[in-house]
Formats: sequence, C-alpha cells, structure tokens
Amino acid sequence: MQFIDFDQLASREVLRDLARNPFDLTSEGALSEQRLKKYVCRSAGFDLLYATQRIDDSVLDALQQMADEAGLIEKFAAMKKGDVLNFIEGFESENRQVLHTACRDLFNTALCPEATEAAREELDKLQVFLNTIKDGELVNSRGQTFTSIIQVGIGGSDLGPRALALALKPFAVEGRSAHFIANVDPDDAAEVLGQVDLSRTLVNVVSKSGTTLETLTNEILVREALESRGLDPARHMIAVTGKGSPMDDPSRYLASFYMYDYIGGRYSATSMVGGVTLGFLLGYEGFMAILKGANKADIAAESPDIRENISLLMAMLGIWNHNLLAYATCAVLPYSQALSRFPAHLQQCDMESNGKSVTRYGALVAYKTGPVIWGEPGTNGQHAFYQLLHQGTEIVPAEFIGFRKSQYGRDVEVEGTTSQQKLLANLLAQSIALAAGKPNDNPVRSFSGNRPNSILIADRLTPETLGALLAVYENRIAFQGFCWNINSFDQEGVQLGKVLAKKILSHMQGDSGKTAQEKGGNSIEHVLLNVAKIN
Amino acid sequence: MQFIDFDQLASREVLRDLARNPFDLTSEGALSEQRLKKYVCRSAGFDLLYATQRIDDSVLDALQQMADEAGLIEKFAAMKKGDVLNFIEGFESENRQVLHTACRDLFNTALCPEATEAAREELDKLQVFLNTIKDGELVNSRGQTFTSIIQVGIGGSDLGPRALALALKPFAVEGRSAHFIANVDPDDAAEVLGQVDLSRTLVNVVSKSGTTLETLTNEILVREALESRGLDPARHMIAVTGKGSPMDDPSRYLASFYMYDYIGGRYSATSMVGGVTLGFLLGYEGFMAILKGANKADIAAESPDIRENISLLMAMLGIWNHNLLAYATCAVLPYSQALSRFPAHLQQCDMESNGKSVTRYGALVAYKTGPVIWGEPGTNGQHAFYQLLHQGTEIVPAEFIGFRKSQYGRDVEVEGTTSQQKLLANLLAQSIALAAGKPNDNPVRSFSGNRPNSILIADRLTPETLGALLAVYENRIAFQGFCWNINSFDQEGVQLGKVLAKKILSHMQGDSGKTAQEKGGNSIEHVLLNVAKIN
Repeated sequence: MQFIDFDQLASREVLRDLARNPFDLTSEGALSEQRLKKYVCRSAGFDLLYATQRIDDSVLDALQQMADEAGLIEKFAAMKKGDVLNFIEGFESENRQVLHTACRDLFNTALCPEATEAAREELDKLQVFLNTIKDGELVNSRGQTFTSIIQVGIGGSDLGPRALALALKPFAVEGRSAHFIANVDPDDAAEVLGQVDLSRTLVNVVSKSGTTLETLTNEILVREALESRGLDPARHMIAVTGKGSPMDDPSRYLASFYMYDYIGGRYSATSMVGGVTLGFLLGYEGFMAILKGANKADIAAESPDIRENISLLMAMLGIWNHNLLAYATCAVLPYSQALSRFPAHLQQCDMESNGKSVTRYGALVAYKTGPVIWGEPGTNGQHAFYQLLHQGTEIVPAEFIGFRKSQYGRDVEVEGTTSQQKLLANLLAQSIALAAGKPNDNPVRSFSGNRPNSILIADRLTPETLGALLAVYENRIAFQGFCWNINSFDQEGVQLGKVLAKKILSHMQGDSGKTAQEKGGNSIEHVLLNVAKIN
Repeated sequence: MQFIDFDQLASREVLRDLARNPFDLTSEGALSEQRLKKYVCRSAGFDLLYATQRIDDSVLDALQQMADEAGLIEKFAAMKKGDVLNFIEGFESENRQVLHTACRDLFNTALCPEATEAAREELDKLQVFLNTIKDGELVNSRGQTFTSIIQVGIGGSDLGPRALALALKPFAVEGRSAHFIANVDPDDAAEVLGQVDLSRTLVNVVSKSGTTLETLTNEILVREALESRGLDPARHMIAVTGKGSPMDDPSRYLASFYMYDYIGGRYSATSMVGGVTLGFLLGYEGFMAILKGANKADIAAESPDIRENISLLMAMLGIWNHNLLAYATCAVLPYSQALSRFPAHLQQCDMESNGKSVTRYGALVAYKTGPVIWGEPGTNGQHAFYQLLHQGTEIVPAEFIGFRKSQYGRDVEVEGTTSQQKLLANLLAQSIALAAGKPNDNPVRSFSGNRPNSILIADRLTPETLGALLAVYENRIAFQGFCWNINSFDQEGVQLGKVLAKKILSHMQGDSGKTAQEKGGNSIEHVLLNVAKIN
C-alpha cells in the first residue's frame, strides 16, 4: 500500500485548474431536468442528489482519478480486513488496527474473523442479558421490571449512542426509555436523576480505559444517588469497558461487556458502547437492525466508482468544496427532528478524526485537512442561521438529509399538504435557492447563489436506515482521511488539555477546609495567576 | 450619525499592519502573571479574561480607535432611544426602529418611553394572568391547576426562550415544566405531546406575523390533540403575536399578549415571546430578574472604553480574529450543561443578524461580515471536536463561558476536588493549552498553540446572570454590525426559500387521493424534476 501526501497527487493539479472556473449553478437553465436526473447516486438505501454541487463531468472524472490515485478503496478494504492503519510512520503512535466495521460484519463471511467473533461473543452475552429482563428474571429488589436505562459516558461513549437513541424513540420497547449523563457539570447528572424512577433504572457506565475522569465522577454521583434511596448499586449498574481496565470488575456490576482496543470511541456506536443501551431501548432485534444497515453501507462503500458509492462520492465532493473551493466549514442539516443530535455526533466523529496537522510520515501538512462540521435540524435552522447561508460572506457547503415518510405517521393536512410534505418541500426549496440564487434590483433581496449543497434521502428513518446513515458518514470520514494522508484514528490533540487540567486540579486540592461552593469560587482567579507555574 | 464602510476606516489600515505580526502566545513567558492580570475586563457581572487572545496594547488601542471611528457607542445609544436603524439607504427596506432593549429598560428613566410603556403594559397583563394561575382562579375544566406549558413557535419564537428555560430549570416554580414544539416535522410535536398531561397544559402559540407556516401547522396539530382528549382548546391556548395579525383573535385564546414591530424575532426573548413561558416556569419575579440582568448589561454596554465594556470588547476582539486574522468561525463553549442550547440561540441571533453581504448603502461588501457561530457545552466538547481546535488546520477562535459555582449545589468530591472544580479546571486548561501550545519531538504530540480564545466568567447561572449574558451577546452582535456598516436587523435572506417552498407545495397539492405517506413519498423526485419550472 502506498501513502501519498495530498499535495503530491497528480489529480490535485487537474482539480486545481478546474477549480478556477467551477460550474455556474446560477446560469440560465443550469439546473436542467437532465442535470438533476444525471447527478443522482443510489447506494446503501440512500439517494444522493448532487446536481446542486459546483461540479460537472470533468470534475467528477478528476475526483475519480484522485480516489484511484490515493488508493482509497484499497485502503478501506485493508482497514476492514484488519491491517494496522492507526499509525504514523517513524514516530511513536497507537499502531493499532481499525476495526469498527467488524462488529457489524455479521451477515456474510466476516472479513476479519477474529474481530467479528469477539463482537459476536459480546452480542450473545447481550442477548442473554436482555432476555433475562424481558422474561422477568432480572428485576429490581422489589421484583419490578426495569423501565429506564441511564448511560454514563462522554465523547464517543455518549454522542453516538445518544444521537441514535434519540432518533429511534418511536421504535422503543413499550414503556422503556434511555437517558444519558455525560458532562462533569454536576447539574447534568442532577437533571437526569430527577427524571427517572431510580428503583427501576439500569445504569450503564461506559469507558474504554476505565479511567475517564468525567465518567468515574458521574458513576460515583449515581452510586450515591442509588444508595441514598436504599438501592444496591450492584443490582443496577452495568459496565462497558476494555478488558483489564480498572472498571473490569464484574463483582461491582450486574453485568459487564467488553469493547476492544481496535475500535475508537467515536466509531464505537455499533459496538457494545451503543449495544447495551440501544438493545435495552429497542430490543435486541432493534440493535441488530442497526448493525444490518451499517453492514449494508459498509459493503456498498467498497465500490471503486465514485458515481456508485455514496460514501466515497460525499468524501470527494467534500474535498472539492474544502480544499479546492476553499470553504472552511460544512453544515449537516437533517430535515428530521429525530436527528437533532446527529450533527453533534458527526461533529465529533469527523473533527476528532480529521482535525489533524501531520501526515502519515509525521510531517506538517501543507494543505487543509478536516473542516468545521456543524448543523441543526431543518426547518428550525431556516428560521435561524440560514440567512448567512444564503447571503453571508462565508460560503457554507450544506449536506441536507431527508426522508420521504415520517417516523410516527401522525400528521395533519393544512392548506392541502401534510407536515411531512412541507418538510420535504422546504428541504428542496433550500437546496435550489442556495444553488440557483435569484437576482433582484434591490440588492438586499438579491441572492447570489452558487452555494454548493447536496441532498441525502432515504425512505423512512428506521433502525436499519439509521445504521446505514451512520456508516455512510463513518466511511466518508475514513476516505477523506486516507485522501489527506493523515491518521484519522488517533486523538493526540486532546492530551495537553487533560494534562493541564490534572495539574490545575492538584493546585485546587489545596483549598481544603472550604465548602464545595467556596472552592469553585475561590479557585479560578487564584489558579489562573499560577498558570505560568502550572504550564 | 455617519455610516462608514468597514474598509474605509483609517483604523483598519493600522490593524492590518498589526495583524502581520500578532502577539505570539507561545513565546517564553508570554502568559505572565502581569499579562493575565492586565487583560481582564469586568462589567455587567462578568469578567472577561482575554490574555489568551493574540493582542497587545497597540492592537487594543487600534480597536478602540476603530470603535470610536465607526461611532459604535453613538449608534448603540441611538438604537436604544428609538432611532430608525433597521434600514438600507436608497432601497426599499424595513425602515424600522430596533427596540428590544426597551422591553427591559424598566428600572430607571426609560430611554424610549413609548416602547417601554408598551412593554410594561404587557408585563402587567402577564402578572395578572400568572396570578390567576397561582391563586387557583384559572384552572382546567376539572378544576386542576396547570403544571406544564408548551411553547409553539420557531426561530426567534423558539430558540431564545428554549435556551433560557432549559438553563433555568433549577429556578422553576415547583411542579412546573416548559416544553417547546418548533419543527414542522410532525415527529417533533408527537414527541412533545407524549411527554405531558395535556389536560393540565397551557399551549402558548407564538408568531409575530401570525402567519408562520410551521407554527400554524403545529397549532392545528396541538388543537386536534386537545380535542381528541375531550379538552376545549380555548381553555388551554395562549397567543403571543403582533397587533392586528391573523392570530390577534382573543376569542380563540385564553389570553393574548402582544409583541411589537420594533423587536426582531431573534432579539425577542426578553419580550412577551419569552415572557409568557418563562413567567409561567419561573414565576413573574423570575422573569423580571432576567430583565433586570439584561438591563444592567445594556447600561454597561454604553461605556465607550473597550477595556471597560465587555460587549464592545468582545465585538472588537471578534473583528480582530475574523477580519484581520481571517478565521472563518467562532466557537461558543459554555462549561455549563444548563447552557446546552445557548450556542444554538447565539448561532441564530448572530448569523441571522450579521450574515449579510450589502452595506447600509446597498453596495456589495468588500470584506467579511459575520462568521459561522457554533459550539457545544464543555467538557463534552473536549471529548468530541477539541482535537480539531488543538491540532486542526482550521483555527477556531473560542469563547469559553463559565461560572464559579454550580446551579444545583449538589456535587461530589472525587480525588479531592468537586465536579464543579473539575469543570473549571478543564475550562482553564483548555484556554491555556490552545493559547500556549506545547512543542514535542513527536510531531503527533506537538501543539502549535496561538489559538485565540477568551473566558467569560460569572459567579453563578441565575435568572439575572443569564439575562445579562443574553444582553452581552445581543449587544456584541449589534456593535459588530455597526462596525461592518451592515443592517443587522432584517433577514431578507430567508425569503427566497420561503417563496420556493410555497411553489413546491402548490405542486404537491396535485397529489390528491393519495394517503399522506404516499404524498411525501412520491413527491420528492417528481417535484425535483420540475424544479426548472418552479424556480
């Protein structure tokens, strides 16, 4: 396998020439029926409508050339079968496999059998565990069934599972709910603990290292809350952690599940990190449907033709917008309230993966890597930040996500159309308005257009569709990282802050004899002025 | 009053020279005790610690010169006393006053007496209304008190009130809760309606024009839900709207409150748009405390000295980072779970205000206006996108927000420090790590630093503090708009999408005789291919 820096790719020169004069979406008849029909990519149960990007066939051909030249499909295949791809050459690095795809590679011959076997083992344990709840064998000390689960985790152990649980509420087992505590802010835990009947609640503590400070602190907070209500934590608490971590102590937990070293936190939603809470919420079959969808998308991502492979095409269009047209950010705009936290998950998954400055060879990159990813669900966003999308001086490439049908099916017809139709009409209208613009003699009412965007659309947001959507984005991120020749699978950038926070906390420990409130109050100025010493 | 384009300001040239060699935060001893003590601005109950910006005294002097030259304080004062500042010269525009500050100008001699008088009238109505609930005069058809309120609105009628209600839950009147429906996505309403006991719920419909499609649709959805449970909507529904709007029909509502033409949606949280729901949730005195805090911040924002005026200083530091150092975005990072939706509100308030491309004279701007505003609460974000903040190729100026004490006061001591201390330690650590960086022989573990940020800190997040925080940001936005010589108070950029959505919907109406689900399903491809005709 060859690792070539992005600025050494011959196709980059071709694209640079093409970027001097990108397709003009505002010209007369630009958005023709022919163009709209042509630039549609169907794969993994989704259609990507991308006629509203500033591309034409020559750009697509050059992006194809780049994908080939950088060996994106080859590297993706190598990743799936277990090659060590989390590395930097010539320097100490994690040097690990990257195998989140393996934990959903359950439906055909597994590409990396050991990894999939390990995943299957945990899934079997999960199924047995969930059955004991379903069958009424596992109950609380009063003989009542469990109705809620609280996941205590942060970052990768929180955002993905949270976004998925929120999105799939309509598919929950009747009477069950899922909650999340992440922030070390004590108000976060207090808020969640006030929402549930703790006596009927399972608490799922998730930390790969078993040493995440926020999570351990919140675990203690929750244990105290259980005890203060006369409940035995060992009858309520579950652990998801790495084998051999300080949390790998089955005597303290009702059940323990493992997450493996080859799965990064931000890619772990389809491992036990998501499995326990989503399995409780949706039932075992519901979680399996997520894995099924993700696996389908993983398979679809193997096609070398960018016109046939949604993940790869989205990756290359992203590079066109970010590196060639020089747009700093990318907005993810789901027209689905259920996906309200999906942009936050992607923000982590993408920015933690590709917010890097050194190549595979440890050299500083001479080009842009990952953009800022942000977004909110539509139509809400239309009444918020879309003003800037349409008329601002920052051009923001937008990725719309939509579904032909609603989840609940409850709807109302107003003025001859349903709410779901209004949602879709707005999605389409925004896509076209951003691309085509509209001149006006009044400059305040003039729209310059040429603001690139695409629409990712599926039939209905189900567990399987969501699994596919998750994997489409995970794979897009991997493709972009390969193309920039960076390591998308470590996160050394979070270390310095952690080290400094520890040092500051050791200074704060000096404040003994004060109340908790006083400590917080006095410390900040005191500590700040000692920064020079601390740093 | 003189309106000068940003690129015509003499101080801009001074700043441009200074920007060639901005202060190096990574140099030996840069973050000295002296510097950390010096660059602190105290106003409006907040401290802004800004030693971690790439500035020195000459930059501050030039920013002061710019603020003076552009007449920012003069324009702000004119806005508060009712000058018409929502205008574009020479072209048709809204031509209105901008008087959101007037609805909290209740504690001294009002600067714009008519506007404040109108606000007071509505406040008096609100107080009477809330008293009838408190005293048990206003009850449901079964004689029970109301325990929940649902606000139905979108954009400005949603984000601000929602962010505030979420942030102030610990201050809620016992037993009361507030909920929000915004999205036209029917799943949004279905979800909220499933959470409350409708028989004890007030429904507060908020639309200035009384014609917002999403809100009217959701109003109908909620009316139907009430009726299907045998409840009379007229005993549950409240309206907040403009005088004379189609919703100004007291016969259909239990109570009606007015919002005035001189208050833009995104600035309306301190008007009745926020007042009814926040007043129900927090009690009348709680809402008044928000107004009190906002008013204090409005007064503090009158100081012409950027070193003494937090809103003005934040505005000028933002311009330094965005226009001079050329950073495209700005992250707002509250270290407070309670402020989880505050960045989304600011995103709207800022981007809808300053995402503009024409000057006060209707000419295309030749410089950057508003940046992309985004963010999530810490410490969560640390485990998500901070990798890019520390080591990415996009430099993201960060605005941290923190509080010395927690809201709930429930806390736990782990390893000798409380959760609140950990939260603050992390905030400080991030600020320093981003600014100072840290070299390492292993390039993957090297931190380049010089990533500008500041910390806005107050004692505790109370209604009054939050009111002040809201106003600090509103005023920052106004100052920046004045400095760029744009109109921060219209939103013409949202019109084209609205017009197109209407056209698309009229096409969809043709799909009669199909079920609601089929309509959504069939329309999208059909409609897309008719785009040329529609547009």
